[in-house]
Amino acid sequence: MIQTITLIGAGNLATQLGTVLQQKGIQILQVYSRSVESAKELATKLGSTFTTDLAKIRTDADLLIFALKDDVLETVLSQLDINGKLIVHTAGSLPMSVLANHSNKHGVFYPLQTFSKQRELEFSEIPICLEASSPEILDRLKELAYCLSNKVEEIDSAQRQSLHLAAVFTCNFVNHFYYLGNQIVQNNGIDFELLKPLIQETAAKVMEIDPFDAQTGPAKRFDEAIINKHLNFLEGQPELQEIYSFVSRSIFQAHKSK
Amino acid sequence: MIQTITLIGAGNLATQLGTVLQQKGIQILQVYSRSVESAKELATKLGSTFTTDLAKIRTDADLLIFALKDDVLETVLSQLDINGKLIVHTAGSLPMSVLANHSNKHGVFYPLQTFSKQRELEFSEIPICLEASSPEILDRLKELAYCLSNKVEEIDSAQRQSLHLAAVFTCNFVNHFYYLGNQIVQNNGIDFELLKPLIQETAAKVMEIDPFDAQTGPAKRFDEAIINKHLNFLEGQPELQEIYSFVSRSIFQAHKSK
Repeated sequence: MIQTITLIGAGNLATQLGTVLQQKGIQILQVYSRSVESAKELATKLGSTFTTDLAKIRTDADLLIFALKDDVLETVLSQLDINGKLIVHTAGSLPMSVLANHSNKHGVFYPLQTFSKQRELEFSEIPICLEASSPEILDRLKELAYCLSNKVEEIDSAQRQSLHLAAVFTCNFVNHFYYLGNQIVQNNGIDFELLKPLIQETAAKVMEIDPFDAQTGPAKRFDEAIINKHLNFLEGQPELQEIYSFVSRSIFQAHKSK
Repeated sequence: MIQTITLIGAGNLATQLGTVLQQKGIQILQVYSRSVESAKELATKLGSTFTTDLAKIRTDADLLIFALKDDVLETVLSQLDINGKLIVHTAGSLPMSVLANHSNKHGVFYPLQTFSKQRELEFSEIPICLEASSPEILDRLKELAYCLSNKVEEIDSAQRQSLHLAAVFTCNFVNHFYYLGNQIVQNNGIDFELLKPLIQETAAKVMEIDPFDAQTGPAKRFDEAIINKHLNFLEGQPELQEIYSFVSRSIFQAHKSK
């Protein structure tokens, strides 16, 4: 049973993961970050110690969680002597194999969610995607994951990459369209508030209906009169016009062929 | 007080609007549709009569609601003798002025939501955007709107067009990214189910946080290593690659300048 953890990283994911682990009674021994402010802030929150010195990272924890940006991870790993220690990374975009040279006991612990530092989340519904270098390690990670969530999935590196990419489409890109919608109404003296029920229903709808069947609006039927009006409305904003045309065509392509 | 309505149109919006009006005790006298199946189906649901003959449209109702596609609306209006009757359209994309030549008592009754025939909605939180040819008519429409919803807004034609366009971004385009995300994971043997908590949280987040501040992910920081991996992953799907690059750049542009 994993009871102590060293958390390497203090970004959005590290903050939320550390918080819920600590709430579940698991001790965060230490937080590492290159930034002293970030390390200190998270360590204070978790009641742990912190360091900004790679040489002082506590490797005596039951598990070392590397929650770092992809390019930083490799650099940090290469400076640690952790063979034989249980280590995981939390990156959707990196294969498990990046850990193989650094410890024979390794895995991936990938919570599929969008995290911000300020926003605490209910973890019980967040899918935790696991991969491990052996069945024994998988069992240990499963035990930990089930402390946090009811949705624990075994996902290999290729599948995880597809999930990460799909998450960019369904979260980052979606959020960007919320942002663009907000810009459009704000420019016309309307509060974003008015769009919120639509945003909620659009998400709620695909909880029950396949997104293909849920589609409505002018692009689906390629209603040129409306599309041209919208493009005129966006006059002077060529980037928005281009995005509008591009996504409309993509919707129409998807729907005309079925 | 509006007590009887003729519903001209039997599409998604007409179906949901008719359903809630009838539930609130307002009598739908008649449903008109060009398609006998659609007209009959909705009339049966609403306990009303139906017609497919423009000449037989009942103009003796307190209100005639035109819930038709934009290009059909003009054709239908031009064949009716309805001057002096209270008429509204429900289109986000059309100005109120399209009604002006047909009756001196006119307005717009635009519920800002995505409607499907099968999915019944709780109307109380749906913004109903009103515009009217006179203060008296506005009052009559307000009275009706407040029967259905707590969120009744006076919105002029230009503002309504901006709302309609923003709805395309925050609903139709967003839903298309759900669809594309679903395609990506399905192609890799993963169930869309796994993305649902992310989709829900992405929408829930912007109920409380400005979409600009809610953004996460590789595009925001233009993480080229991840972006290139994703583009490689989409090899052989040039349309998806193009959309991916385009939206990623748009996110980065928005964030680098602030």
